[in-house]
Amino acid sequence: MDLKEFRSKYTPIIDNFLKTHLTEEIEDKKLGEIMAYSVLAGGKRLRPLIFLSTLKSLDMSITEKEIRIACGIELIHTYSLIHDDLPAMDNDDYRRGKLTSHKKWGEAQAILAGDGLLPLGIQWIAQASQNVKLVEIISEAVGPNGMVGGQYLDIDATNNESVKDNAEFIKKMEWLKTGCLLQASVQMAYVYAKCIDEAKIAALDKFAYTFGRSYQIYDDLVDLVETSEQAGKATHKDEEEGKNNTLTLYGAKQSRKQLQDLVDQGKQAISIFELPILGEFFDLYQKVM
Amino acid sequence: MDLKEFRSKYTPIIDNFLKTHLTEEIEDKKLGEIMAYSVLAGGKRLRPLIFLSTLKSLDMSITEKEIRIACGIELIHTYSLIHDDLPAMDNDDYRRGKLTSHKKWGEAQAILAGDGLLPLGIQWIAQASQNVKLVEIISEAVGPNGMVGGQYLDIDATNNESVKDNAEFIKKMEWLKTGCLLQASVQMAYVYAKCIDEAKIAALDKFAYTFGRSYQIYDDLVDLVETSEQAGKATHKDEEEGKNNTLTLYGAKQSRKQLQDLVDQGKQAISIFELPILGEFFDLYQKVM
Repeated sequence: MDLKEFRSKYTPIIDNFLKTHLTEEIEDKKLGEIMAYSVLAGGKRLRPLIFLSTLKSLDMSITEKEIRIACGIELIHTYSLIHDDLPAMDNDDYRRGKLTSHKKWGEAQAILAGDGLLPLGIQWIAQASQNVKLVEIISEAVGPNGMVGGQYLDIDATNNESVKDNAEFIKKMEWLKTGCLLQASVQMAYVYAKCIDEAKIAALDKFAYTFGRSYQIYDDLVDLVETSEQAGKATHKDEEEGKNNTLTLYGAKQSRKQLQDLVDQGKQAISIFELPILGEFFDLYQKVM
Repeated sequence: MDLKEFRSKYTPIIDNFLKTHLTEEIEDKKLGEIMAYSVLAGGKRLRPLIFLSTLKSLDMSITEKEIRIACGIELIHTYSLIHDDLPAMDNDDYRRGKLTSHKKWGEAQAILAGDGLLPLGIQWIAQASQNVKLVEIISEAVGPNGMVGGQYLDIDATNNESVKDNAEFIKKMEWLKTGCLLQASVQMAYVYAKCIDEAKIAALDKFAYTFGRSYQIYDDLVDLVETSEQAGKATHKDEEEGKNNTLTLYGAKQSRKQLQDLVDQGKQAISIFELPILGEFFDLYQKVM
């Protein structure tokens, strides 16, 4: 099975689980609708697919329990998007081609939708895994030393001349903002699978690092090469708004080179697995190379 | 040991743990400072004290692990206060006699401080308990079917004439907003203690319900009887802003009667325990009776 087949099989299963269970399990139907609006706005389901692909690479079977954990990760990712789009943060009107949560429902509603998705995501992960280690991994990855820390650095750095050329700072910010949650999706899978093969864990850690690091560079390149219609959100905003990232620091050519280096390292690491699907996630980057 | 002695012993231990570990464990010192500002603004530490008192009532010893769980609950409570105070929500300038987080640091910073405290609180609970059931209890209690759901109803109901006289709606909203997290503090303690004595669990559930339900009524009465200087925040706001609660529905006399009934039931339930400290939490209400 290659990644294309894997995605074709599991993306609708993920979408269906999200839709069904957000409707069934949230008692207040209006709040459920607001939360589901953003979750069902049509993302790539990248993080749940990485979690499930890692399980598959470790010969684990995928049942409803594993789908619930994967979907818990997607709820948490969606919460982060809703809050990032808020007027006080990036102030975005569109996301995935639709109005952002606060534009559609109001600002208080958007804050609460995010505030509801985070604990619900953790609850799903806890319920389905019955493994406290997964909770430790996810809560650390999205906390002040992870995703929220990265978002804080981003806000602190915007229009801050003193970090504009600080490569170390930018690398750290991008890792925390984006890399941590992608890495956690891999780590949760091998902990859940009770994998003790050190070579496999090392290979998965290498994949998690290279994919997590490269994904933000890719995302910034998308901002550069796509029109907003293609991307479903405002593009070309970063430079205008004084955002600092690898792209603004090194330019497109160097960024593409860094991206290619990371891809090569990541694919090399994954080559020890019989199933190639994790390595194929890098093919997502083709459109900006 | 009565509650006064218990509080005198453990409040400084809780405060000290919070201060030390927020400083030590949050890598970005500025973000840590913003988060600690609200956590260390001088609350009563009611939820951690209830968690620890329940453990004590079940003859559990209290070590650093149990303090970490208790403090995790306080981080989560503080997150909820920071987000409730935001301009899009209750728009409060003062809390516990100090500027609210967004007034002091800015709105994006306040949103992120809350967003950091919630997963950090869950992380502390998971790390110290190594018990996934505690994570399920806390994440459900603060999610869309708990605290966030209550806050959503509150926003939805403000100035909404159709629910103004709906006692059932108001009771539900107050329970979700305030009762759920207080109840979870008790439940986490007896699950952590691996208590299987059904009479004790029933008594603790009764206490949790009556205290959780009565606490919001008490809080609304504080809003009525105290000046803002005493309360450390704006008071007399509820009626002006069209807020619906037990007090606006039944008036002060009936609210006090309801409060007394709940106190009597709760104290009765707790009387089966040798140690009276949980029942003494109701004495907090004296100032509004």
